Amino acid sequence: MTLPTFDDIKAAAARLQGVAHRTPVLTSSFLNGLTGNHLFFKCENFQRAGAFKFRGAYNALAQLLPEQRRRGVVAYSSGNHAQGVALAAKLLGISAKIVMPTDAPAAKLAATRGYGAEVILYHRYEEDRAAIAREIQQKEQRALIPPFDHPHIIAGQGTITLELFEQVGTLDILLAPVGGGGLISGNAIAAHQLSPATQIYGVEAEVANDAYLSLQKGERVSIPVPPTIADGMQVTSPGEITFAIMREHLAGVLLVSEEEIKNAVRLVLERMKILIEPTAAVPVAAALKNEPAWRGKRIGIIVSGGNIDMAKLVTILA
Amino acid sequence: MTLPTFDDIKAAAARLQGVAHRTPVLTSSFLNGLTGNHLFFKCENFQRAGAFKFRGAYNALAQLLPEQRRRGVVAYSSGNHAQGVALAAKLLGISAKIVMPTDAPAAKLAATRGYGAEVILYHRYEEDRAAIAREIQQKEQRALIPPFDHPHIIAGQGTITLELFEQVGTLDILLAPVGGGGLISGNAIAAHQLSPATQIYGVEAEVANDAYLSLQKGERVSIPVPPTIADGMQVTSPGEITFAIMREHLAGVLLVSEEEIKNAVRLVLERMKILIEPTAAVPVAAALKNEPAWRGKRIGIIVSGGNIDMAKLVTILA
Repeated sequence: MTLPTFDDIKAAAARLQGVAHRTPVLTSSFLNGLTGNHLFFKCENFQRAGAFKFRGAYNALAQLLPEQRRRGVVAYSSGNHAQGVALAAKLLGISAKIVMPTDAPAAKLAATRGYGAEVILYHRYEEDRAAIAREIQQKEQRALIPPFDHPHIIAGQGTITLELFEQVGTLDILLAPVGGGGLISGNAIAAHQLSPATQIYGVEAEVANDAYLSLQKGERVSIPVPPTIADGMQVTSPGEITFAIMREHLAGVLLVSEEEIKNAVRLVLERMKILIEPTAAVPVAAALKNEPAWRGKRIGIIVSGGNIDMAKLVTILA
Repeated sequence: MTLPTFDDIKAAAARLQGVAHRTPVLTSSFLNGLTGNHLFFKCENFQRAGAFKFRGAYNALAQLLPEQRRRGVVAYSSGNHAQGVALAAKLLGISAKIVMPTDAPAAKLAATRGYGAEVILYHRYEEDRAAIAREIQQKEQRALIPPFDHPHIIAGQGTITLELFEQVGTLDILLAPVGGGGLISGNAIAAHQLSPATQIYGVEAEVANDAYLSLQKGERVSIPVPPTIADGMQVTSPGEITFAIMREHLAGVLLVSEEEIKNAVRLVLERMKILIEPTAAVPVAAALKNEPAWRGKRIGIIVSGGNIDMAKLVTILA
């Protein structure tokens, strides 16, 4: 098991320079007043392809050997990783096949195809997407680009905190959603290198608490596919690498309810005028829930993405 | 009739320094690809109180004499001017009464009261808000802060283009919504001082075409209160000052349908991840409609605000 280092994250940042957007950090006097803290929203919903996933995908694809690039890549994803890999592949001139669930948001399916990738559909509750991807990998000799449990993916995601700290300085607390753990792992390494005192919390939906249970037990725990509105969290267990990093760096995992997630989407839309997807609203919900010890704190929130079907948004707002 | 000058706009910018937000300019590769132009969205939906109106209101209130400040202000508004005046009054320690229609978006009523202003309700289709405001003005000796037809208001709004040109350079075309004309007037003066070749178009809803008709006829035309979803355009005629400025500076007024306005709100939300109100979507709709002569143009769009009831948004998205 190779763990990514801070140098890997800096190298990723150099690769992403001029390719990924340096996303803005937004603040809201209203939400600061509501919580009594200083909240800094790092807006990866404005990232290319609408989510942070592009960073890790591009960092991984850019490091493929010429022979691998020629044979192409294959990936599986509940949504944003698919678009990230598809766009990165397009920019680098690499063929991409993406295994996606039949119930993935229509906009994500369309966007993935729009970037020129071939989409292979599977049934989320019946088939094993990893097995399907492995079959394509072996048959066509394509490089498998995993959604989170790879040092290159993790290092790419970690570039978010490099930017965030440059933009606003160091933070007391950093909140990020935990799906497979790639996002929080990379950013935990970056944050603790730059500011060892920063407390880093992963946030999960209550029904998608695989990282919470795993950290509690001290080993990786598997849960059934969680029925959460936060579709980026429909992951059954943390990765091997991401679990090791989370154990080392996390102050804890916070849990929020489905209702709290929906309220956060609504409030951020109404007051901050930005669209965030349910998975991105998970750490926002934790900030609104507001731990008793948090007063006057500088809290960074990684807003992971903004890809949400309008039909789903309507059900949240109505 | 005193027309505001470019120097008035520069003086307004100095007053607003550190008080109003310097709003970001966003771009979208998707919308650029769709139109074949380079679109620059000047995002006043991120302005304080959620709309450009704060600029003009603060610029006007900051110039009141000490005696006037003591007696307070009164204003009438279909929404955003109310919040702008209320917030400016709060920041300057001035008492404010705001005459608002009973059917104003609930969020706008709540926000206006939230800034500490007293709201006086009237029936939009039965009562004359100007008369009600004048009565309060005379009885309580309050300064009347008109929504658009005043040099201080117009100069405040013009600071948007000062920033926009600093942020992205000069433009071939500038698009802005026209309600009473305060926004476009101030920005037309600023744009033509900095770049005489820039073509400036006002954009109206088809059913709210009072400026269009007025410019066609060469005199101010009144229409019935227009039943448009763009509530910032429920104005029956251009102002005296704003009409004079529009006559001098506008290349024309473009018209868009209610359906085109709704589509623009939806598309900007889905692709750009930002919430804009229907009035702000009016010039976006014109950019999407795309005049045949516009190809490869640098087009600035003043996104006037982001205040929209979630219930209304749902009807647009559903």
